[in-house]
Formats: sequence, C-alpha cells, structure tokens
Amino acid sequence: MIPNFRSDNIATVHPDLLRAIAEVNQGPAAAYGDDEYSAAMNCKFSAYFGTDVVVFPVATGTAANALSLAACARPYGGIYCQWEAHIHTSEGGAAEAYTGGAKLIPLPGADYKLSPEALADALRHAERGVRNRPQPDAVSITQATEYGTVYGLDEIAAVGAAARRAGIVFHMDGARFANALSTLGCEPGEMTWRRGVDILSFGCTKNGGMSADAIVVFNQALAEPLSYHLRRAGQTWSKMRFAAAQLMAYIENGLLLRLAAHANSLAARLGRELAALPGVELAAPVQANLVFLRLPEAAIDKLADAGVRFARRRGGIVRLVTRFDGGHEEIDHMVALTRAALA
Amino acid sequence: MIPNFRSDNIATVHPDLLRAIAEVNQGPAAAYGDDEYSAAMNCKFSAYFGTDVVVFPVATGTAANALSLAACARPYGGIYCQWEAHIHTSEGGAAEAYTGGAKLIPLPGADYKLSPEALADALRHAERGVRNRPQPDAVSITQATEYGTVYGLDEIAAVGAAARRAGIVFHMDGARFANALSTLGCEPGEMTWRRGVDILSFGCTKNGGMSADAIVVFNQALAEPLSYHLRRAGQTWSKMRFAAAQLMAYIENGLLLRLAAHANSLAARLGRELAALPGVELAAPVQANLVFLRLPEAAIDKLADAGVRFARRRGGIVRLVTRFDGGHEEIDHMVALTRAALA
Amino acid sequence: MIPNFRSDNIATVHPDLLRAIAEVNQGPAAAYGDDEYSAAMNCKFSAYFGTDVVVFPVATGTAANALSLAACARPYGGIYCQWEAHIHTSEGGAAEAYTGGAKLIPLPGADYKLSPEALADALRHAERGVRNRPQPDAVSITQATEYGTVYGLDEIAAVGAAARRAGIVFHMDGARFANALSTLGCEPGEMTWRRGVDILSFGCTKNGGMSADAIVVFNQALAEPLSYHLRRAGQTWSKMRFAAAQLMAYIENGLLLRLAAHANSLAARLGRELAALPGVELAAPVQANLVFLRLPEAAIDKLADAGVRFARRRGGIVRLVTRFDGGHEEIDHMVALTRAALA
Amino acid sequence: MIPNFRSDNIATVHPDLLRAIAEVNQGPAAAYGDDEYSAAMNCKFSAYFGTDVVVFPVATGTAANALSLAACARPYGGIYCQWEAHIHTSEGGAAEAYTGGAKLIPLPGADYKLSPEALADALRHAERGVRNRPQPDAVSITQATEYGTVYGLDEIAAVGAAARRAGIVFHMDGARFANALSTLGCEPGEMTWRRGVDILSFGCTKNGGMSADAIVVFNQALAEPLSYHLRRAGQTWSKMRFAAAQLMAYIENGLLLRLAAHANSLAARLGRELAALPGVELAAPVQANLVFLRLPEAAIDKLADAGVRFARRRGGIVRLVTRFDGGHEEIDHMVALTRAALA
Repeated sequence: MIPNFRSDNIATVHPDLLRAIAEVNQGPAAAYGDDEYSAAMNCKFSAYFGTDVVVFPVATGTAANALSLAACARPYGGIYCQWEAHIHTSEGGAAEAYTGGAKLIPLPGADYKLSPEALADALRHAERGVRNRPQPDAVSITQATEYGTVYGLDEIAAVGAAARRAGIVFHMDGARFANALSTLGCEPGEMTWRRGVDILSFGCTKNGGMSADAIVVFNQALAEPLSYHLRRAGQTWSKMRFAAAQLMAYIENGLLLRLAAHANSLAARLGRELAALPGVELAAPVQANLVFLRLPEAAIDKLADAGVRFARRRGGIVRLVTRFDGGHEEIDHMVALTRAALA
Repeated sequence: MIPNFRSDNIATVHPDLLRAIAEVNQGPAAAYGDDEYSAAMNCKFSAYFGTDVVVFPVATGTAANALSLAACARPYGGIYCQWEAHIHTSEGGAAEAYTGGAKLIPLPGADYKLSPEALADALRHAERGVRNRPQPDAVSITQATEYGTVYGLDEIAAVGAAARRAGIVFHMDGARFANALSTLGCEPGEMTWRRGVDILSFGCTKNGGMSADAIVVFNQALAEPLSYHLRRAGQTWSKMRFAAAQLMAYIENGLLLRLAAHANSLAARLGRELAALPGVELAAPVQANLVFLRLPEAAIDKLADAGVRFARRRGGIVRLVTRFDGGHEEIDHMVALTRAALA
Repeated sequence: MIPNFRSDNIATVHPDLLRAIAEVNQGPAAAYGDDEYSAAMNCKFSAYFGTDVVVFPVATGTAANALSLAACARPYGGIYCQWEAHIHTSEGGAAEAYTGGAKLIPLPGADYKLSPEALADALRHAERGVRNRPQPDAVSITQATEYGTVYGLDEIAAVGAAARRAGIVFHMDGARFANALSTLGCEPGEMTWRRGVDILSFGCTKNGGMSADAIVVFNQALAEPLSYHLRRAGQTWSKMRFAAAQLMAYIENGLLLRLAAHANSLAARLGRELAALPGVELAAPVQANLVFLRLPEAAIDKLADAGVRFARRRGGIVRLVTRFDGGHEEIDHMVALTRAALA
Repeated sequence: MIPNFRSDNIATVHPDLLRAIAEVNQGPAAAYGDDEYSAAMNCKFSAYFGTDVVVFPVATGTAANALSLAACARPYGGIYCQWEAHIHTSEGGAAEAYTGGAKLIPLPGADYKLSPEALADALRHAERGVRNRPQPDAVSITQATEYGTVYGLDEIAAVGAAARRAGIVFHMDGARFANALSTLGCEPGEMTWRRGVDILSFGCTKNGGMSADAIVVFNQALAEPLSYHLRRAGQTWSKMRFAAAQLMAYIENGLLLRLAAHANSLAARLGRELAALPGVELAAPVQANLVFLRLPEAAIDKLADAGVRFARRRGGIVRLVTRFDGGHEEIDHMVALTRAALA
C-alpha cells in the first residue's frame, strides 16, 4: 500500500474502544450525561488527573476548543495564542463564532510554542479598561503543537504563571495530548492543572477514538456556563454512554500512552531516516507524531505523483503524520520512495 | 425491571449499526467526509429518497435543526413553526445562536401540527421590506410532532405550497422521521421533497443509532453554505466513515422502518390499554411512538414513587415514549402499575 | 395641513435642546464621554433620579433596549416581556442579535401590561438548570406601553418583587418615559429603581430630542459590561458632549414633563372626541400620548385617502400618536375629518 | 491654552452644520429615512460622487465600518486589511460581532498602507473551498490611514483590481475621507468607485460633524441587506432628517475640503517644524492631519507633565492630530513647548 501520512485522523478506531462501546450497549440509560457511565467517566478522569474534573465529551476538536473558549472569554474579550495555533488558522472562525466575536491575538514563539515572555509583554500592554481594545480573558496553547513540538513543564508553568498574574483563563488544546504526555513522561496532572491549566481540550479521536474528544474542566467555575453553551451548540449527545465508554477505555491502563508512544516512535524514525537523505532537512524538531521536512519541490512533486499522501506547505515544506495504527513497513516504503524521488 | 418510558434516546444502539461500524474499521480513510464510505452514503441516500441529496452527519438533532436553519435564514430572518416545536421550546436557543439572531415565529395548529392556513395568513401579513420586522425566510415542521402526531401527505404539501408561494425554505425536523414514515406507509421521497421539503433533519439516534443524526439536503443551493456552518460549528467529524456506516446500515433493507414500526405498535398498545382505564384519557392521538395521557395527579405521584420513568407536564399530563428495543412485558408492567396507582 | 398622527418620532427637536447643543460647542472636549459635560450629565441624572446612576447616550431606542438586555442576559438566557413588547415585535431581532441569541419569552397581561402573576408563574416553571431551556435572566416592561397604557406604581413594584425573588434583572423600556411619568405624577425614582428597576431605556427622541436616547443604569454592576458592548456596537459617540447637552436640557426644570403633559392632553382630547362619534370606540385606555381606536374599515380607507397619516392594524384598528409639538387645530381637523369619513 | 492634539474627535461642530440642523427643524417629517431630506441627501451624494449611491447615516465610524463589513462578509468569511487597520486594532471586535464571526486577516504594507501585492498573494493562497479556512469576502483599506498616510489613486486601483479579480468586495474606511481627498486633489468618485470601491465609511464627525458619519453604498446589491443590519443594530435614526441635514451641509460647496485642507496644512507645518528640532524625527510621512514623531522619552514625559494632550505609543512615538477648528497659535505653542522639553 502506498504510504499515507496525511493525518492521524485517517486512522481506525482502536478495538478496545469498540469493545467498550459494545459492553455498555445494554438496556436503557439516562440521556444527556445523566447515566451511570458518564458518572463513572467523571470519577475515572478525576482519578486519572489527580483532581476533581468535569468531563464533557464533544464531537470534534474544533468543538472542544471553541466551546472551551466560549466559557472563558467575553464577546469583547481577547484570547492569546501562538501565530500557528489551530484555533486561529484552521477552525473556520469557530472561536469567534462561539464566543460571540472575541478576538484571537496571535503572538510569536520559537518552535511554534507561545513564548511566555511575549505573552507577559502582551498582557502588560493590554490596555485594560480601554473600551475599543480586546480585554484579556484567556490564553491558549497547543500541546503538542501544530508542528509536533512539545512544551516542557517549565514552559507550561511560565504560561500558567503569566495567566494567573493577569487573572485570565489558561486553555490547553490537547488534540495530541497523549503524544505530548508520552514525550514528557510525566503524570497528566503535571502537564495540566498543576501548571495552571484551567480547561483542556482532551483529544482522543486522533489516537484511537471514534467520535469522542472531550473538554476536561479543572476550574470548576467554568463548568456550568460551558454546559449551557454545549447544549445549545448541539454538542450534548443524548446517548452519552457511548462517548463515556470510549473515553474510559482510552485512559484505562495507560492505553492512550501505549498508542501515542508507538506513533511517536514511528515519527522519530521517519524524521531521522528522511533527514539523513541528501537534500532533505527537518523543518521542526520531531517531538511527537508530526514530521516537518524541507525537500526540493521536484521531489515533492514526484512523491505526490506516486500517490503518497501528505500535507504540502509553501516553501518546499511537507508534513508527515504518523498514527497509532501505522507500521514500520510504511516508514520503510516512504524512505525508499523519497530516496527515489530525490535521485 | 421497572418501566422506563422517559424517552427514546435512552435506548441502545441496534447491533446492525455496531456491526457496520466494525466493518468499516479497516485501514486509513480520508477525513472530514472525503472518504469512500461518505461517498457511498450520499449515493445510497440519493437512491433511498429517489433524488440527488447531500447528507451531512451531525452529533445531535439540535445540531441538525439549528444548522439547517442557519443555512436557510438570514440574521434578520423569521422562521415559522408550531408553538410546540422542539426548535422553539427545547433547544436552548440553538437556532437563534447559529442563525445569528433570527426570530422563531410560533404559530397555532391542531394536534400540535402547524396549520397551513395559519402559516399562509402569517406570510400574507409578514410586512416584507419593513426593516424592524423579521423577514420570512423559512418554515419548519416536526414529523412526527413533539406530541406524536403525524402530518398527512396533504398537510405537508399544503405547507410546502405556502412556502413555495412565499419563496421561503421548508425544513422538516425529522427526529422521529422513521416513526412518521412507518405510520404513513409511503416512500421517503413522498413525505419530503415531493411535498416541497428543502432540507431535512434526519433522525437516527432515537431509533437505533449511536451518534449519527444527519442533515439531508434536497435543495442543493443550501449545501455549500451549510458545509461551512457545520465545520465552524465543530460538527464535521474527522472520522466520518463511522457516521456514514451507521447511517447506511440504518436505511439498508428497511431497517429503520422495522424498528420504528415496532416502537409505534408498542405505543399504540400502551395508549389503548391505558386509556381504557377509568380516570385516564389520551391527551393527543397516538400516531407514532409517543403517548400523552391525562391522569389524576395522585396516580402520577404513585407511579413516580414506584420508580416508573416518564416525563411529567403541567395539568396532569404525562408523556410515555416507546422504543425500538422495548418489549411487551414493559407495557404489561406499566398497565398493571397504572391500574394499581389509580385504585 | 392634513393631520399627521403617524408617530411621535416625526416631531421636531425642542429649541431648548438645540440651544444646549450650541452652548457646548466651544473649544475641544475629550471624546467618548470623558468630557466635562458627560460628567455633569451623570451628576444631573443622579440628582434627578435621587440615586447614583450611570448614563450612556445611544442613537436609538432599539439600541438602548437591545444593549441594555445584552448587559443583563447570557446567550442562553431568557428575557420575559409582554406579548406586544416592542423588543419582541418591532426591533428586527436586535435583542437576539446583541445578546448572542437569548430568547424573548412573551407573556400575557391585560391592557398590554405584563401581568406580574403571569411573570411569577413563568418564573416558577422556568426549569432552571435544564440545559435546553432558556435560563431566567431578565424581565422587561414598557412604560408607557406600546398601546399607551401606563403601569401603576404597584404594578411596577409587583414586577420588581418577582424579579428580585427570582434573582433576575429588571429592565424598563422607557421610550415614552416622560409620558408615563406625567400620568403618574410621581418622582422619576419612584417609577424606577425604588420599584426594583435595574436598568432603564430612557427615551428623549420622541419627546423633543434629536438623536439622544440613553441607557440609565441603576444597578452599577451592569455598567462595566455595558460600556464594552456599547463601544463594539458603534454606539459610543466620540463627540459625546452633544448628546449630554441634549439630555441635560431635557430634564432641566422639568422640560420633559411639560412636553409630555402637552402631548398626553392632546391624546386625551383626541380619544375622547373621536370615541364619542358613532361607530368609533377606544381599543385601549388612553393614558399617555397614544390613541387606539376601532373604526369601520370604510372610514379608515376614507381617512387614508384624505392623506391623514396614522398606523393601521388588523381588525379595523388605528393608532394615533400625539406629539409635544402638536396643536389643538390638528385635533379639531382630525375630528372633523373622521366625522365626515363616518358619514 | 495648552495644546491639545489628542484627536480630531475633540473638535467642535462646524456652525454651517448646526445651521443646517436648525433649518430642517420645521414641522413633522417621516421617520427612519423616509423623509424628504433623506431623499435629497441621496440625490446630492449621488451628484457629489457622480454615480447613484445610497447613503445610510450612522452614529459612529465604528458602526459605519462594522456594518459595512456585515453586508459584505459571511460569518465564515475573511476580510483582508493592513496590520494597523482601525477595524482590526481599535474597534473592540465590532467587525467580528456584526458579521457573526468573520475573520480579519491582517497583511503588511509600507507606510501603513495595504500592499496590493500582499493582498494578491494572500488571495492566491486563500484555500477557497477548504471548510476550515476563512473564505475571501472583502478587503478594507483606510483612507487616509491610521498613520496619516494617503493611498495614491494607482494604489487604490491596484487594490480594486485585486478585489475584482478575486470576486470580493472592496470597502474603504474613510474616517478621514476629506483629508485624503484634499491631499489627492481629485474628485470623490475618482478616489472611490472609479477605482473599484464598493462601499465607503464616509467620515464627517472628525471634520466638523456632530453625530453623523455615513455609509455610502456604490454597489447597490449591498444596500438591501445593509438596511436590515442597520435597523437591528439600532443604527437607523428615527429623526433622520437631522443627520441628512448635517451631511448635506458638509458636502455643500466643498465645505468638507476647506475644513480638511486647513487641518492638513496645520499638520504639515507642525510636522515640519517639530522634525526640524534636534532629537525629533518623523515616524511617518505627513500626508493628512496626523503627525507621528519619534522623541526622547524624557521629552515626552515633560510634554505630558506640561499638560499637552497627545497619544503616546511604545518606542518613543507620539501621535499629534490637527483639527479643522485648530489654529496656528496652538502650533506655535507646541513647537515652543517641545523645544523646551528637549532642552
């Protein structure tokens, strides 16, 4: 089969999650999250994170992000993020729509990570009380980032400290949460609320889920308004048990980390072997399951002509994404095809 | 087990749909509906309805309704519906939110069905061009209605004719589409586009689905704007094949009708036997899988105390909903408990 | 001149207000309400109402109402009002737009006044915490009403008490504030905050202003969010002094009451004399400057053909509005024309 | 008096406009723009621009801009502008709010003017049809810019050509329209529709108006949706004649140009004389009525301490704005104070 590194959302559903769905498919269960499985999910996630959390399953990462932000930001609020943040570049204005028009304020940062200094500086000059400027309400970081880099715990803490000093909410877009967690090798609580994160878009779909990302709320004050925003957004499933089952299976016995570690290791190897080819170089450090490479345009054309699937960016950059259900043969094949394309 | 007639969304997922999910869980598939299964779904639904349709799976009926309306109505538009329409009473303002503030205009109608005469009259007096009045953009009917009544084909045609004359869009909220179709015993196209329906919220979840309602677009001009609204609403699943698989299995070989017919027959029996008890009367004709009864408040209290689950309304009214996975023992049990409660 | 009772917004500007504008037109003044005149306006209005208020001039009554409500209601909130409330029937969805989709909940009430009992009943059955229902956030009454009736102080107090018990905000649409105040003959504070009103749309335009209605905030917690909503709505004038000047002149030495009393007396006479004609009857009590009459349709046609200006409603009802700058000859003329039309 | 160069919106109202207001203050006039003065305004503006236009007076420049854009852009649309555009930096999210969440896409450009090449490049890479990207709907330029520079006719034409090729709407924010027009010395039509402008925020307030900016619509297809957006935004004055009178007086016999030319000449002198002082340099070319200077921070502090009013920016930059009602003594005074502050 021709290699397909288009994205991790082309993947299958992990069999454990399908099995979990089948297991809860017994008799009636209360709707809209009032069922016993949803209650169990909240308990298990609280244990998993080491603190009381409220979990709201949603259909997509875009919904998780934009509705999280709707609970954080006023219509006249400002939300800080890195230039390349998915919420700013790739969600079709969902954050603006759900917040009622809040402003995303893009900031710089090396390796596609928001610079805590840039954030602190922006907050210092935010002109609070000036009615025609967006009022600081939230900051959002993506962990792992859109370019596959991973914030260190100190970097997260620095963003968290700046947010706390400014009295704004700290959101983490964790579309690839498990991939980052695997890289850092720490407890989930360490990467989130212990570093100041108030609310988390907890990705599951890209790493084995079917249709169940989730919003994990650490800051309980956000849960109530969020619950209303979700319902009127049409994001509160009636048959919630099937989302709860997926999410519980996903964190059970570290499944999420096993899957992410595999995808990460495929990416590491893919990046290492391709970057060793003449004329190829890494365009970003490989720290999760994304590989960004700079290649001659002619080679990119040849790969595309050969049917290889990947995302192409301006300036001779390609993005390759590895998956929990990917294998080493696909890597071998890709390396061989790239070598041929470069010849 | 104590009877539970709380709603049809407490039901399980039909095994055929779980099987269909498992079957498509093979290898990578393009995301966001660009996969082969989604293409097949569009073909199968087009064949099913006897005309070219575009199908957009969504997470919930609320999303299906509100996003359909967002594609139909301008922010300063008006949307006509019956007083008791779910979009007006029970969706947390989703239609207002997604349309950017359009106005729902509730109208009367016997048996909880929008009166075509009331609609025509409202359209005649709509004050088009008057800038401070909502401008007619759409009409929405619920089939089957929130009270389990079913529009006849002539009634749908009359609404459709009024809509066409006025140049407005005709939306059908088909949360219980199959239940109504089973009652009418006609082809799905007969109940929809052949009677003027432009866009349909196609319910599957209440009748055996897991997480896949859908918007079925007959009027192709609505599909493009709708696709953008869906994406920014976070309602475009990345792993769309799993929604497509459910929806295809649902219509395959008339499954939806077999399931709905069973639920409807349970309701018919439940209504008939309970209404035969002294002190009980039907509060609405039983034409689908909903039974509305008027009982003495004391009897309602006793049933609730016994742990029976149902929805209670003001004025001694209870709503009982039957399910595709319900059985006759539950009916027997309910009749016995009610008889006891009345004693 | 042919009588023109189309509305009170066809009127001129009172010369005192033009004079006030000219007087403040001296040298530079800080923009956006940071000028000395705006400060003086806040002081004078605080003295006028007998409590500390914050005043925000706006361009129109629609802006005053919808932005007031935006400061009171959450996007998933509900706002109670009488069926015929201008915010519900005649503002093009402004409240829905500015609140981000809150729901107006129309309630009955005799003489076009919201019934405190109906409000209390609706609040009792509001299903707080149920995510798909609008959550009670505000109640709005119109004083004088859209049909020229006037709430008594006890009626306002009853609404205020219901609002306070329910913990919701009490808004008064005072497009014809002075007309009502003149009828009641009380202090402005008596008709507002002393009866529980939190925020007031203070009309000036219909009674002698040029372009300066205002939001008067009694409940200080609403002032800050409101100030942001106003700015991003493009409703914060840069040259605020000219609005402040109008508003100060309007309340100076009771000008607003003298003007309103004149308009009211014209309406009283108009209603009395027309209702005395055979075939004519009042359709609402005349308590401010609006007269609603029921006439034979043929007579209405004749008046319209004669060039008389008025608003025509369904069912043989006409609305006549008197103005601060109207005169008794116009009344005489109207009575004569109507007598002829009836002949 | 201590110099005040804070902004041009601290200015008075020109007496000719007050006189025009008084002149139309005679007898009743139809409301909401249906009066004879509003009709005359449309005729006079059509003659002034040399083409049929529709004019909508609004309360503020923010309203003019954001509502213009609401008529141009879909909720999922993108609006291109220069980084420093007022609509992006200084309107509190008004454009996002009124459009329902459209995305402002900031682009570079020398001298604070949008680069036509940057625009063309952005349009070329806009990813039309990709559902999670903003879809190109409009481009907006500010003439004169926020930094007092003025687009040449060829530059406007280049933006217009790029817009036309891409099928998007071309909006001009003309808060300082007359200042730019005076600099270019051309006909108003030359600077607008003949170069491709579809819709114009026509500033009057900063240059002698009281409360009447306006939207001038060249592309007639935008007028109808705009009229609804305006009404529900509470931006349609009932007593429209007073706005119409101001706007007609403003363009009558070239008044706007005489006033702007005076302000521009004050700015030219102010810039020239201050930039001649040691340690002072221009931070932007002076082409309208705005002067941007770089000064030592200590000197800026001294000027502020002396009570001089101006806007201070980061990096030792100050903004000085001259006014139609400013005088040469204020310039003399400022030059002397600056010389002293630098000493």
